Amino acid sequence: MKLLFDRGDLRVEKIDNIKNEINYYLNKEENVKEEWIEENHPIDIAEALSELDASEINDFTKLLETEDLADIFEESEKDLQIDILKCKSSEEIIEIFSHMAADDITDILGLLPIQKRKELLRHMKQDDALVVKNLLGYDRESAGGIMTTEYLLLSKNLTTTEALNKIKKIAPDTEIIDTIFVADSNKKLVGSVDLRDILSSDDEKKLEELMDDNIIKVSADVDQEIVAQQVAKYDLTVIPVINKSGILIGIITVDDIIDVIEAENTEDLYKMHGVDEEESSDTTLLQSIKSRMPWMFINLATAFLATFTVAMFEDVIAQVAALAAAMPIVAGMGGNAGTQTLSIVIRGIALGEIDFKDNWTLLFKEAMVGVINGAATGLVTGLILYLMYGNYYLGLIIFLAMILNLLVAGMFGFLIPLFLQSLGIDPALASAIFLTTVTDVFGFFVFLGLARGFIVYLI
Amino acid sequence: MKLLFDRGDLRVEKIDNIKNEINYYLNKEENVKEEWIEENHPIDIAEALSELDASEINDFTKLLETEDLADIFEESEKDLQIDILKCKSSEEIIEIFSHMAADDITDILGLLPIQKRKELLRHMKQDDALVVKNLLGYDRESAGGIMTTEYLLLSKNLTTTEALNKIKKIAPDTEIIDTIFVADSNKKLVGSVDLRDILSSDDEKKLEELMDDNIIKVSADVDQEIVAQQVAKYDLTVIPVINKSGILIGIITVDDIIDVIEAENTEDLYKMHGVDEEESSDTTLLQSIKSRMPWMFINLATAFLATFTVAMFEDVIAQVAALAAAMPIVAGMGGNAGTQTLSIVIRGIALGEIDFKDNWTLLFKEAMVGVINGAATGLVTGLILYLMYGNYYLGLIIFLAMILNLLVAGMFGFLIPLFLQSLGIDPALASAIFLTTVTDVFGFFVFLGLARGFIVYLI
Repeated sequence: MKLLFDRGDLRVEKIDNIKNEINYYLNKEENVKEEWIEENHPIDIAEALSELDASEINDFTKLLETEDLADIFEESEKDLQIDILKCKSSEEIIEIFSHMAADDITDILGLLPIQKRKELLRHMKQDDALVVKNLLGYDRESAGGIMTTEYLLLSKNLTTTEALNKIKKIAPDTEIIDTIFVADSNKKLVGSVDLRDILSSDDEKKLEELMDDNIIKVSADVDQEIVAQQVAKYDLTVIPVINKSGILIGIITVDDIIDVIEAENTEDLYKMHGVDEEESSDTTLLQSIKSRMPWMFINLATAFLATFTVAMFEDVIAQVAALAAAMPIVAGMGGNAGTQTLSIVIRGIALGEIDFKDNWTLLFKEAMVGVINGAATGLVTGLILYLMYGNYYLGLIIFLAMILNLLVAGMFGFLIPLFLQSLGIDPALASAIFLTTVTDVFGFFVFLGLARGFIVYLI
Repeated sequence: MKLLFDRGDLRVEKIDNIKNEINYYLNKEENVKEEWIEENHPIDIAEALSELDASEINDFTKLLETEDLADIFEESEKDLQIDILKCKSSEEIIEIFSHMAADDITDILGLLPIQKRKELLRHMKQDDALVVKNLLGYDRESAGGIMTTEYLLLSKNLTTTEALNKIKKIAPDTEIIDTIFVADSNKKLVGSVDLRDILSSDDEKKLEELMDDNIIKVSADVDQEIVAQQVAKYDLTVIPVINKSGILIGIITVDDIIDVIEAENTEDLYKMHGVDEEESSDTTLLQSIKSRMPWMFINLATAFLATFTVAMFEDVIAQVAALAAAMPIVAGMGGNAGTQTLSIVIRGIALGEIDFKDNWTLLFKEAMVGVINGAATGLVTGLILYLMYGNYYLGLIIFLAMILNLLVAGMFGFLIPLFLQSLGIDPALASAIFLTTVTDVFGFFVFLGLARGFIVYLI
C-alpha cells in the first residue's frame, strides 16, 4: 500500500462539490435536473448525502425521480439506506425496490425490523416477494446469500440466431451478458457459452455445440470466502450457483466478490488483533469502546498469566534487578517473531495456499527460522548485556532464552491458526493475542528460570 | 475467514488426480489427448505440474500441443514459468507467446535476464515487440504495468449495425466484450457503450447517441492500489487507461484487479509485522531467514529502548520486585490496544475511507477509547494487584499507568500510519513494531516512574 498524500483530498473536493450542488437544489426546492444526475456517479452522490443530516436527506430525496433515487439508494452505505427508508412510506419503498435487483432488496430487508420486513413483502408483487423470501433463507455469508437471480439461462437446443434474439430481449434485465448459461431439458445447468462465440459463429449452430461443459460452479450453501477463492483462482467474472439437483438458482458477479474479498481481508486483520469486524473509522466512540473492551479484558486475563510467571521469580529479580530490564527483550522478540509466522500462515490459509499434508515440513521450517534468528539476535543481545552489566553469564542465559523462545514462537505462530481452523473456528480470531501470551509466559519462564539456575554467577 | 477443514483436502485430491494422469502420459510417452485438456482447467494442471521436478515438467511439456502449453503456461506461478522457459528454445518460446496476451508476455519478460529478454524481443514480430517494449516501460505496480492492450475501441460515428459487425470480427482477440470504448476523430476516449445497448437498440443509431460519456478512467502512471480502489468503488468490470492526451492506451480487467487487491492486502498484513512481501508458505528456509532477520534486528534495537527505560529504574525494582511482575501488564495492554487502533487506521487508509480533514476528531476518539478502556481494565488490574500484594498504592499506580499508556497507545496507533503516509512511506510498514516500542517504553516509564514517586508507600 503506497498512496499519494493528496489523493484523499482530491476525492474530498469532488464530494464537496456535489454537496454544494445538493444544497443549491435544497434551497431552491427545485427538482433535480436529469443532466446533473447523468454527470454525477450515484456512488459519489450517495457519499455526499451520507454527510448531510437526516432532515436534509429527507428533503433532497423528495426532489429526485424515483428511478434516480433507486440508483443512489442502491449504492449507499447501510446507515444512509436506513436514513432514507425511515422517511418513506411503504408504497414509496416498493416503488424504489421495483428498480432494484432482488439480491440488493434482500440485503436491505435483512437490515429492517421483522415487522417492517413482513409489511414490505406483503406489498410487493407476489413473484418478486417469492424470490426475495427465498433469498432471505440463505446465510448472509454463503453463496446463496450473495447471489443474484438476474442471469441469462437458455436451452441447449437453441440455435445461435434464436439465442441472440432471446438475449436481445432479456439482456436489459440481467446483471451480465458476456456469459450465457445453458440448461438441458430438465433445467439442469450443463454449460456456459461466451457471447462472443455466439456473435461470431455460424447462425444455425446449436448452443450445445458451442458451450463449454466444464464450468466452475458452487452450491448455495458454500461459504462466501470459498466462492471468492474460486473466482480469484479461475479468473471468473461470474460464477453460477446451483441447488442440490444441479439446477441454476443464481449467479454471483465479480463486483460482489471484490466486496467479499475486502470484507474478509478486513475481518482477518481485525480478528487477528481482537477488533470487531463491524468497526470502521466511522464507528462512534461508544460503539468502539463497547466492541473493544471485551477484547481488552480477555487480553488482561492473558496478561496476568505473564504476571504470575514473573511473580514466581520475584526472589531472583530482587537479587538481580538487571533481569527485570532484560526480560522484555526475550518476550518482545518472541512475540514479534511469532507474529511474522502468524501473518504468513493466516494469509496462506486465506488464499488457499496452505496444504495440510505439507504441515510438518512447514512447522519444521518455522521452528528452524526461530532457532536461527534466535541465535543471531540472542548473540548480539548477550554481547550488549555483557557490556552493560559486565556479567558473562547474563549474556549466556539471554542467548539461550532467545533461541528457545523464538523456537516456541515459530511453532506456536504456526500451530495456533491451524489448531483454530481444525476446530472450525476462524483461524485469525485473536491469534496475535494468544500468541503473545504464549511467548510472554514462555519467554519469562525460560529466561528467569535459567537465571535462577545460574543465580550464583549473577550476583 | 471461516473455512471447512476438509476443503483443502478436496482440492488436494483433485490436483493429485491430475498428477497421476500426467504421470500416465509421461510413462507412455503419448501425446496428451485433447479431451483430457478440455476436462481439466489449465490452472489445475499448472498447479499439479508445479509439484513435479524440472525434468518431468520438461518431458511433459513436450507431449503437449503448443496452444495447450500456452494456456497452462499463462496460468502458472512464476517459478513454474521459469522452469518451463528454461527447457525451451527461443523459437518455442515465441511460439508460446503467440497464443498469449501482450501484458502476460510483458510480465514474463520482466522475470528473465536482460540478455534473454532482448533476444526474445528480437525474435518476435515487430508489431508485437513494439507493444511489449512499450508495456515494459511502465512501473510494474502502475496502471500501465498491469493493463492489457486487447480492447474494443470504435469510432463514435459508427451505427450500431456497423459496430456490431466490427465487434463480431474483433471480439475473439479482446479481453472483454461487454464494454466497448468509443473514440472521437482524434482517437481521444470520449465514452463507453454497453454491448447490451448495442444489441437491443435501433440499427441506425450512432454510438455517440448510445454512449455514456461520464466514464471512470485512470492515467497510466497511477498506482495499482488506487486503480483497485476505483474499480471496487464503482463496481467496474473494466477500467480504461489513457495517456496524457486522453487517448486510450489499454484496459485493466477486474480479474487482474482481484490479484492486485490480494497482493496489496498480503503486503499490508506482512509489512505491518515486518515480513517481506515476497514471502509465502512456499519460501525456502534460507530465504525466510534472510528476509526476516533484518526485521528481527530492527526489532531488537527498539526492544533495547525498553530495556534502557527499565534499567533506569533498577533501584526501584530492587526494592519492590513485585513491580517487575506487574510491568508487563501495562506495556502489553498498551501494545494490544494500540494495535487495535492501528488495524482500523491501516484498513481505513487501504479502503480509501479515512479523510484527512476528519483526522482530529478521529484522533480524539481513539484517545478517548484508550482512556476509558484503560480506566476499566486498570481498575480491575489495580484491584487484583491489591489483593495479590495487599498494597493499596501498587493498585493505584497501575490504575493511573494503564490510563496514561492506553491514551498514548490510541494516539500513536492513529498517528504512526498517518505520519508514515504523509512522508510518502507505506503506512503499514512495520507500524506494529514501532507502536509496541512506543507503548513498551512509555508504559514502563510511566509505571516505574510513578512507582519511584510512591516508593515510600510501596516498601
